[in-house]
Amino acid sequence: MTIQQRDLTKLVTRLECGEPLPSDFYSRTGKARIVGITGPPGVGKSSLIDRLIDELRRQGKTAGVIVIDPSSPISGGALLGDRLRMQRHSEDAGVFIRSLATRHHHGGLTDSTPQIIHALDAAGFDIVIVETVGTGQDEVEVAEVVDTVVVVLMPELGDEIQRAKSGLMEIADILVINKADLFDGDAARREARPPNDGKWERPTIHTSAKNGDGITSLCGWMDAHYAYLVDSKELTRRRARAARAEVIRLLQSRVRTSILRALEAPQAQSILTDVAKRKLDPYDAVEKLSQKILGSKKQE
Amino acid sequence: MTIQQRDLTKLVTRLECGEPLPSDFYSRTGKARIVGITGPPGVGKSSLIDRLIDELRRQGKTAGVIVIDPSSPISGGALLGDRLRMQRHSEDAGVFIRSLATRHHHGGLTDSTPQIIHALDAAGFDIVIVETVGTGQDEVEVAEVVDTVVVVLMPELGDEIQRAKSGLMEIADILVINKADLFDGDAARREARPPNDGKWERPTIHTSAKNGDGITSLCGWMDAHYAYLVDSKELTRRRARAARAEVIRLLQSRVRTSILRALEAPQAQSILTDVAKRKLDPYDAVEKLSQKILGSKKQE
Repeated sequence: MTIQQRDLTKLVTRLECGEPLPSDFYSRTGKARIVGITGPPGVGKSSLIDRLIDELRRQGKTAGVIVIDPSSPISGGALLGDRLRMQRHSEDAGVFIRSLATRHHHGGLTDSTPQIIHALDAAGFDIVIVETVGTGQDEVEVAEVVDTVVVVLMPELGDEIQRAKSGLMEIADILVINKADLFDGDAARREARPPNDGKWERPTIHTSAKNGDGITSLCGWMDAHYAYLVDSKELTRRRARAARAEVIRLLQSRVRTSILRALEAPQAQSILTDVAKRKLDPYDAVEKLSQKILGSKKQE
Repeated sequence: MTIQQRDLTKLVTRLECGEPLPSDFYSRTGKARIVGITGPPGVGKSSLIDRLIDELRRQGKTAGVIVIDPSSPISGGALLGDRLRMQRHSEDAGVFIRSLATRHHHGGLTDSTPQIIHALDAAGFDIVIVETVGTGQDEVEVAEVVDTVVVVLMPELGDEIQRAKSGLMEIADILVINKADLFDGDAARREARPPNDGKWERPTIHTSAKNGDGITSLCGWMDAHYAYLVDSKELTRRRARAARAEVIRLLQSRVRTSILRALEAPQAQSILTDVAKRKLDPYDAVEKLSQKILGSKKQE
């Protein structure tokens, strides 16, 4: 660990507020393994990560955890239930946990998530875990920024969640059926082994965050998937995709700021009023406003 | 109804594919009441809307329904369970139902949702209902495009959903506790009445989509809320906000296209490669790319 926990906490807060990563950090990234853990609400993702941290620490690995919290867009989020349990690791210098509220952002990740991943990576953590709620909307966004996607489900989910599942299944490198203790204790378990013919066969692992069953197996499969990524050069491809996604996100964020500023101008306000009064079609309004926004951007 | 159902079906498909609203349509909008119905998965939104359509038709009103379907981003969506039930209205010319899959879009609404609302509005429907899954992320987006927000919950929801609730409560004009039959049959019901001192007091209505309880009361409250919006001039304010949100959405969509096209250029590709190799910071990459994107936009 090259950065003190307290300094890291402050840095992450600054990143969350939209400040850029310090200029010497990015070149030190790329060493940590980035793992996304996603799944519908209530399947026990946080309890599972809590167990996973125990196992990683037992193996002598350090872990940074980013929890994306789909909180109220207006009143902000709060740490509840399982989240609190995870905080018991807060005394451990080899573990860093941070909950990010997705205020005012429509999607799975906050704008600062990639930068915060870089910060934990540069800080020297062996593994960075990103927990998101898989609601059938944010899967692609998560898959874009991590090396390995672990999808957590549980037996007996309702119709609407079942439907969301199909999207989750498509991005899963490792599938975890948690709460196995509640429904089917003797579910089959496969041991971690390398892929057959250079192609990754997604394993299904039954776990119980409650009694710790299957956690060692999950860690083994995470190692196996990382070895596969390195051997197959898929890691290079995924990280190129992550870099592209991050640049696009930053570009869009910059443009969004320009748009909102341009709309404050009196002329833009009167265009918006005409749209509200049905005097002007929204498309024609966009034609008129585009030139103004380009103008205001050029002065930056 | 000024447009045949079949023509409307075709038009909505074209709008979904990104075509703009025909130029004579927008000026004919603003007459329909736009109602958003949102809530967590599994609370019975679709069954409730099915009952609501029955009641509206009984009152001689026509209804257009847009169902935002958080389907798999890769494999597309499918009509399941309750959705199928709603389709029994498909023979009724006074009812139009369309399910929109939120493919490749990170958020509560699809990019075409506002245009499709306009199409149903211009087609002459008395009420346009927009159903979304309230996952704690898309609430604001829905509230931005509708006149009245109905939030549907049910008794006894889990922790993570409970947390999402607080955001939903903040945007609710009318709160519905559905599945009242399952938990507490004799819940109190308030009759619809105008607001006290010009301020809207959000009612809580207990319904059962199963046996139809509370649906007439819900309709009454929807009428009362619309009357309040008109009387208080809040309707004008909300529709100005909707126009602004739609213009911003269109501007962002246009810029997104410009960004993706600009990134295809060989020079941009080599910048992205440098980012992936940690030779170039994402922020510096954005600096370099911004000018290129402005250049490509100016030629449009």
